[in-house]
Amino acid sequence: MPTQSENGVTNWGRWGADDQQGTLNLLTPEVVSHAAGLVKRGKVYSLAMPLAFDGPQWPTRHRTWKVTTFGVQPNGRGSADDVVTMHSHSGTHMDALCHVWYDGQLYNGHSAAQHVTSAGATRNAIDHVTSIVGRGVLLDMAGFKQCEHLQAGEAITAADLDACAQAQGVEFRPGDILLLRTGWIRVFAQDRELFYASEPGIDVSTLPWLKEHDIVAVAADNHAVEVMAQVPPPDLPIHKVGIRDLGLYLVEYLNLEELAADRVYESLVVIAPLPLTGGIGSPVNPIAIA
Amino acid sequence: MPTQSENGVTNWGRWGADDQQGTLNLLTPEVVSHAAGLVKRGKVYSLAMPLAFDGPQWPTRHRTWKVTTFGVQPNGRGSADDVVTMHSHSGTHMDALCHVWYDGQLYNGHSAAQHVTSAGATRNAIDHVTSIVGRGVLLDMAGFKQCEHLQAGEAITAADLDACAQAQGVEFRPGDILLLRTGWIRVFAQDRELFYASEPGIDVSTLPWLKEHDIVAVAADNHAVEVMAQVPPPDLPIHKVGIRDLGLYLVEYLNLEELAADRVYESLVVIAPLPLTGGIGSPVNPIAIA
Amino acid sequence: MPTQSENGVTNWGRWGADDQQGTLNLLTPEVVSHAAGLVKRGKVYSLAMPLAFDGPQWPTRHRTWKVTTFGVQPNGRGSADDVVTMHSHSGTHMDALCHVWYDGQLYNGHSAAQHVTSAGATRNAIDHVTSIVGRGVLLDMAGFKQCEHLQAGEAITAADLDACAQAQGVEFRPGDILLLRTGWIRVFAQDRELFYASEPGIDVSTLPWLKEHDIVAVAADNHAVEVMAQVPPPDLPIHKVGIRDLGLYLVEYLNLEELAADRVYESLVVIAPLPLTGGIGSPVNPIAIA
Amino acid sequence: MPTQSENGVTNWGRWGADDQQGTLNLLTPEVVSHAAGLVKRGKVYSLAMPLAFDGPQWPTRHRTWKVTTFGVQPNGRGSADDVVTMHSHSGTHMDALCHVWYDGQLYNGHSAAQHVTSAGATRNAIDHVTSIVGRGVLLDMAGFKQCEHLQAGEAITAADLDACAQAQGVEFRPGDILLLRTGWIRVFAQDRELFYASEPGIDVSTLPWLKEHDIVAVAADNHAVEVMAQVPPPDLPIHKVGIRDLGLYLVEYLNLEELAADRVYESLVVIAPLPLTGGIGSPVNPIAIA
Repeated sequence: MPTQSENGVTNWGRWGADDQQGTLNLLTPEVVSHAAGLVKRGKVYSLAMPLAFDGPQWPTRHRTWKVTTFGVQPNGRGSADDVVTMHSHSGTHMDALCHVWYDGQLYNGHSAAQHVTSAGATRNAIDHVTSIVGRGVLLDMAGFKQCEHLQAGEAITAADLDACAQAQGVEFRPGDILLLRTGWIRVFAQDRELFYASEPGIDVSTLPWLKEHDIVAVAADNHAVEVMAQVPPPDLPIHKVGIRDLGLYLVEYLNLEELAADRVYESLVVIAPLPLTGGIGSPVNPIAIA
Repeated sequence: MPTQSENGVTNWGRWGADDQQGTLNLLTPEVVSHAAGLVKRGKVYSLAMPLAFDGPQWPTRHRTWKVTTFGVQPNGRGSADDVVTMHSHSGTHMDALCHVWYDGQLYNGHSAAQHVTSAGATRNAIDHVTSIVGRGVLLDMAGFKQCEHLQAGEAITAADLDACAQAQGVEFRPGDILLLRTGWIRVFAQDRELFYASEPGIDVSTLPWLKEHDIVAVAADNHAVEVMAQVPPPDLPIHKVGIRDLGLYLVEYLNLEELAADRVYESLVVIAPLPLTGGIGSPVNPIAIA
Repeated sequence: MPTQSENGVTNWGRWGADDQQGTLNLLTPEVVSHAAGLVKRGKVYSLAMPLAFDGPQWPTRHRTWKVTTFGVQPNGRGSADDVVTMHSHSGTHMDALCHVWYDGQLYNGHSAAQHVTSAGATRNAIDHVTSIVGRGVLLDMAGFKQCEHLQAGEAITAADLDACAQAQGVEFRPGDILLLRTGWIRVFAQDRELFYASEPGIDVSTLPWLKEHDIVAVAADNHAVEVMAQVPPPDLPIHKVGIRDLGLYLVEYLNLEELAADRVYESLVVIAPLPLTGGIGSPVNPIAIA
Repeated sequence: MPTQSENGVTNWGRWGADDQQGTLNLLTPEVVSHAAGLVKRGKVYSLAMPLAFDGPQWPTRHRTWKVTTFGVQPNGRGSADDVVTMHSHSGTHMDALCHVWYDGQLYNGHSAAQHVTSAGATRNAIDHVTSIVGRGVLLDMAGFKQCEHLQAGEAITAADLDACAQAQGVEFRPGDILLLRTGWIRVFAQDRELFYASEPGIDVSTLPWLKEHDIVAVAADNHAVEVMAQVPPPDLPIHKVGIRDLGLYLVEYLNLEELAADRVYESLVVIAPLPLTGGIGSPVNPIAIA
């Protein structure tokens, strides 16, 4: 019997007691076809930050470590390869539904103690996310608020999301992928200390909104999608309720600058995580096509 | 002054002396728009094999190593992450244009000794591949030859490619992504020893064909795209000429089984490598949308 | 309150409720001085196996992964380094006292759940073992039994230890390091499949013997010191009682061939683990000086 | 034919054209026996710094990365292990004779290009150092100069070494291991920025001195044994001539504080590197016994 969601919103049981995919179930063929129809100019955007030694990365994680191996024969013929050691949550990445839990329970009511070990997750792991393909809707909050970036600790409410959508002239459809631009990723290049101390993002008022609009994923240009007055914060309610209760996907550290500059408010979005067996997440290179 | 291609075909200089992207230059907005128009049913295919400890992987490479870290607070709240050590050429992956060279020169005539070190590649690295998005054309050679899979060491010639395309009723367009199904990936599950000893694939007769048809990438369901009588082989001419002379992308270890079963001979294909700074390649989860 | 040792022997509380070093407490200055006095010929033996990709290593662990980085300047000046990814229990290695537990309790009665996390151990970790320096006593069981190596699954009892010591003419002193030669390490080179299927070693009858003789460490030329009819075995009583109840150190995969050939039955032994903060063990290169 | 040493001192050819061990050849049984005879009180010193995430480590290297894996059965029985990713030159460590070269040649005149690749070194690698066991002579330069630590960029000359030895009342013997205390390791805890900017150490005047005294190894409490006005320095002559021409071993980041406090000017020293096949160095836990 599932623990009641601490926020009152839940998708447990909605797609069956055995479901491990959460909001991916909303990505119907109709959603995909409609999204493909949004491609007009044929312009492709990579929404990933460079996957580099110095991040961006959650500050308590280790840095991405890459070594290149190579060999050359006397005749000048050669080849190379890399060896990479990294967190699956490095750089631009997405969280699997086993990433966080509370009351000892994962999404859809399974025991974390039983399913999450050093060997990986036996439920809700990233290899259940074959892809996220659908309509991406950009809410350019920084553009809407006419600022370079939202401020440290500045909350985005459900009302803010509606106001921004209205100003941009976009309406949401079930199965949308929300691309949320706070402008915070600019701070990464400008002020590393500020970047790692806090962030603007959505607050708990958006949880019923996300449920109501049947959002599949929130992909934002900050650490953790949600507002944090400090890093690490005392609580991460969007992670807890979004991932564990709604089965919602969070994607982090996106670069939405060019998409916003081009005012691409809707596009075909493809996010394709690596199918790490039992993995808790994956680095990704999200693609938007307009 | 570039060394003459050993096969006589080359794209050096075609997109400027400073080009680092090779055939990606063929992916014009028109190519992308046309490919998006191929989406009819809204069905999405993940073409990746599981990214797991035991491959598939080039046999001389180390195995993918994943450890999950997790923590639980006394109140039952917890979170997890993974630490992964892997080759960038692990599982389903793509090769950057700096992956192989001969006569000491990389694609477009740059010195390998100068540009490839333990710290990575300073030319033609994977972070120059923001994405490959275009029309994917599946040539189901195993289906065409009415066999479960092509035989070990069986060569696919340019004439075979034409015959298969004709039988399937597809024609190529500049900027196409060739999805080549040999059926060899089935051997991975059936006979590991055979799988790692050899493979069917394209031979040198296809190099002028790939150039003439302006193929952007060849993505195949085997180790190395090209035919190998033994592993490792004495030579890898498709790697050498394809990557170094044509600036062509090779993508390996795809799972094309479902795409072939559905006879999806053309689709919108999205391949989005991780932007590893200076990286020699990247694991990928190629997506086809039909 | 400590759980009663399942074997009836325990050192809990013997060196204080807060002790984290176990039998290291037996290594008094007198023990060390006496051991140094055993050096006569000035011959030094390295008792480690090569630390290589293919082991020896517990079969369920990943293989040691080493990549060398190097750089050369145009004037021919250069330098190199390695990047290593490995288990701390790789090759010849020693177990920290936090390596195994039962009834949820570590050596000296502390909670495993509280002290062992993905971040390491906060009690009984390898960095509490600054070194093991003392008198090493070799029991050459294979020599005593006049066989190349003991058989798979062959048990060494307390009576066997006594008989072998008597035949060799050695007597034990408190604080001794037992170097136990089964000959099994020879099988590593001869028959890899047999090597990883089983092993000869000490059985539970030796636990009171180890306690009575105040042995500091048992260092053997096999996987796990103790007899195993199969790998992995259903139970590892020497690990459980030896490490958790006696605070005894186990050192594994030694090469004792040369020491036995020279009949060095007593020597000064130095085992110096890497002080990995919070580590569960360490690879070592044990040294015997005679 | 060897390139002339840039300093005029060399041991090339001294122990045969095929020698890969350099000054280890000086560690005769007599040297070892004599050193063992120095043990009086039976006190053991570990001379290693903690092997931890944040060093000490050469600032351009990655940090040591350790993850602990563990598993618990329902009955409370469990076990743990670590996965470590690190440079072989992490924390307290020793350099193999293949670590640096100039004029394209390694120690004893072999080609670096031929013998050092991404796969490791095929000459002069760390697995040729089975151990360093001999008489350690501490020169406490900081104590001699009555300062907490020598200053950044302060050079220690051959005359300084002699003066310090005389003041301490010690004389050198062929095959000695020089333990050099500058006090700089104290700066690691006090001022991390200063620690990584520079260091006191021996200068080029000591090279003939090291040759003349037949020193086997110099083990110091700083980054690189030798004086550096800045990090990284334009040149590292002690590394170049010491390692490549003399076949001398350098051991770095030692903690000599307790040894100096106890005025242990001579002791039995045991340094036992991990036998990493083809490795360029190894972390070590050097042991002194007095």
